[in-house]
Formats: sequence, structure tokens, C-alpha cells
Amino acid sequence: MFISFEGIDGSGKGTQVSLFMDYLSKKGVDFVYVREPGSTPLGEQIRNILLFSQEITPKAELLMFLASRAQMVERVVKPALALEKLVIADRFIDSSVAYQGFARGLGVELVKKLNDFATGGLKPDLTFYIDVPVEVAMARKKHLDRIETEGEEFLMKVRQAYLNLVKEEPKRFVLIDGNADQLTVHRKIVEEFEKRRKG
Amino acid sequence: MFISFEGIDGSGKGTQVSLFMDYLSKKGVDFVYVREPGSTPLGEQIRNILLFSQEITPKAELLMFLASRAQMVERVVKPALALEKLVIADRFIDSSVAYQGFARGLGVELVKKLNDFATGGLKPDLTFYIDVPVEVAMARKKHLDRIETEGEEFLMKVRQAYLNLVKEEPKRFVLIDGNADQLTVHRKIVEEFEKRRKG
Repeated sequence: MFISFEGIDGSGKGTQVSLFMDYLSKKGVDFVYVREPGSTPLGEQIRNILLFSQEITPKAELLMFLASRAQMVERVVKPALALEKLVIADRFIDSSVAYQGFARGLGVELVKKLNDFATGGLKPDLTFYIDVPVEVAMARKKHLDRIETEGEEFLMKVRQAYLNLVKEEPKRFVLIDGNADQLTVHRKIVEEFEKRRKG
Repeated sequence: MFISFEGIDGSGKGTQVSLFMDYLSKKGVDFVYVREPGSTPLGEQIRNILLFSQEITPKAELLMFLASRAQMVERVVKPALALEKLVIADRFIDSSVAYQGFARGLGVELVKKLNDFATGGLKPDLTFYIDVPVEVAMARKKHLDRIETEGEEFLMKVRQAYLNLVKEEPKRFVLIDGNADQLTVHRKIVEEFEKRRKG
């Protein structure tokens, strides 16, 4: 089973990924964690460039994310799934669609096609989209990286893109209300996960 | 005018680019030199990763080259062409088609489409393809980087791909016989350049 977590910066996604992995550990569920960009030697080099370089065009940015993704899918995700391990991804294909495809204006359909090339068509079985209003997300964040400093209007577009994706693929996505306190959000995620694991 | 130089490693391409730039300098022609991957701060970081990392999947490799290309076209090539400068590129779109598309088997048509995305459809006005048999090229090379250590069969595929491209776009490509001595090759390149510059 392949599960991804998505959400705008400040949605609490990172915290929820951690809480979920704690839960899995306590339950004795073996899993592999990946984050994007990163999770391979190549991916971590790409991560450094993407988060801290000053000057990257939108196309180059997208292509770097895709390079990291292609490497990660081939070297980490596919081998783990082949061993029937649970894979937990902090961001995956939908981040590129929302950030680069919609918010940066490169085109949603184009980015979906490029994702398919990079991943060989692999999609998560389940995607938790943690939804919070942009004001809430911005109030939570203190240290911002290059992409996170894009501002309110940009993040509003990203959120809109995610909400569109949830509507388009209701079977894959579970929309989680990220306004609630951490533990409530966590319980909801566990509930949805257990429902699908048993189902 | 936008001129690219292509050829397998060991074809003498690098030397010919240098000789051609010397010629332009003596003639007082203003030009901008770019090399791939590289030529921007982002591109040079990508160059380091590509030439010296041990483990890169073919797809990730292609996407990294494309990221470098997208950044270079937007930040260096297009601005230079807008100022009516001559741009000299040591490798460009055709390298990806020959190396990743054909020799690594990702698909020629697919790589052409991805090139179009990365460059916004920009192609050189003139491409010098310097042709040498693989045995000659291999005998010339002493220090090999990651891609250059692929071996004879790989380079034979790359050469075949280049020869196919020359046939497909006879107006853009000039096939230069790289077996001749450096100065003969150089003179031929200058002759073809001057013919087109005046034409």
C-alpha cells in the first residue's frame, strides 16, 4: 500500500506524517518513509538546490522535482512495494500538479503527463490531503524556504488546485480538516487508514 | 544566430568549439558560449551531480539535463539572441535525443517532446555534427566521466542516432568529417558558417 500526504506549507502535514509513523511503529507495521524532493543520494542533492538556490525558472524547478521523483520511485518506492511494504510519502505527484502546474501556471494536464513519465504511471493508493485556509497556514509557519515565501495569493492557488484534485479523484483522496487540533486530525487519519486497510 | 556543436565524446567537438571561438574573436564577432549541462549557477550544480554521481536512473538523468537546459535557455540563450548576439552551444537538444532518447532507450520522439517543453520549442539555426567512428573517438579519450565510460556499444548507438538526426533535418545539420586533422576540420566549419552567415 502506498500512501501520500499532501497539503500547503503550514497545513500541519509534517506533524501528521510523524504522528502516523509513530502509530504504525506502535502497531508493528513495517513501512518505508520518503519525502520529496529527496530520499535518495541524488534526491537529497536536488533538495538542497531547490530549497536554497536563489534563481530557478518554473520549468527548471519542475524538472528538478521530477528528476528526484523518478529516482525515488525506481530506487525506493517500487522496491519497497515489491516487498509488500507500506510506503509513506510526504508529498508526491499532486504537489507538482498543485504548485508547478496550477500555481506557477505551467499547466495541470501537462504536469500530470510529466508525472506519468517520471513515475511510470505509479500513483498512491491513498492520499491524505490536509486542508487548512491559507491564513491559518501562514500564521503557523515561522521559518520559510524559497518556495514557502511565495505569499498568500500563491498559496491560495495551491489550495484551490488541491481541492480540484480531491474532486477529480474522490476514491484516492481523503480530505482531512486540518483546522482541528493535532490529535483530532491524527485520529481521523488513522480511522481512514484502518478502514481501507481492512476493506 | 544560434549554433550548436554535437558529436560523441572523443569526436574532437570541444577542440573545434574552441578553435571556432578563437576565429570569431579574431573576426571581432560578439558571441555567447554555453555548454550543457551548465552555463547558469543552477546548471553548473546540475553538471557536478551528473558528471560525478554514481547512481542516476536514465529518466532522472534526462530530467536533470532538461532542467539545466530550461534554465539556460530562459536566462542565457534567449536574452543573448534578443540582443542579436551569436550563441555557440557545446551540446544542446540533440545530445539528449542521441544519448538518452536512443542510446539509453527512453525513446527519440518522447525526448523530442520533452526538449520542446524545456526550450519552449527553440532550436539552433545551425548544428555542426562532428562525425568520427567510435574506435577513433575511444582511442582519443583518456579521462572519462560517468557517461563517457559507457563503452563502445553505447557510443555506436549514440553515433547512429546522430546520423539519423542529420538525415531528418538536413537544413539544420552540417555533417563534418571529424577524421581529418584539427585544422582541416576547423576550416570546413568556418567555411560552412561563413556561407550561412552571408546567405
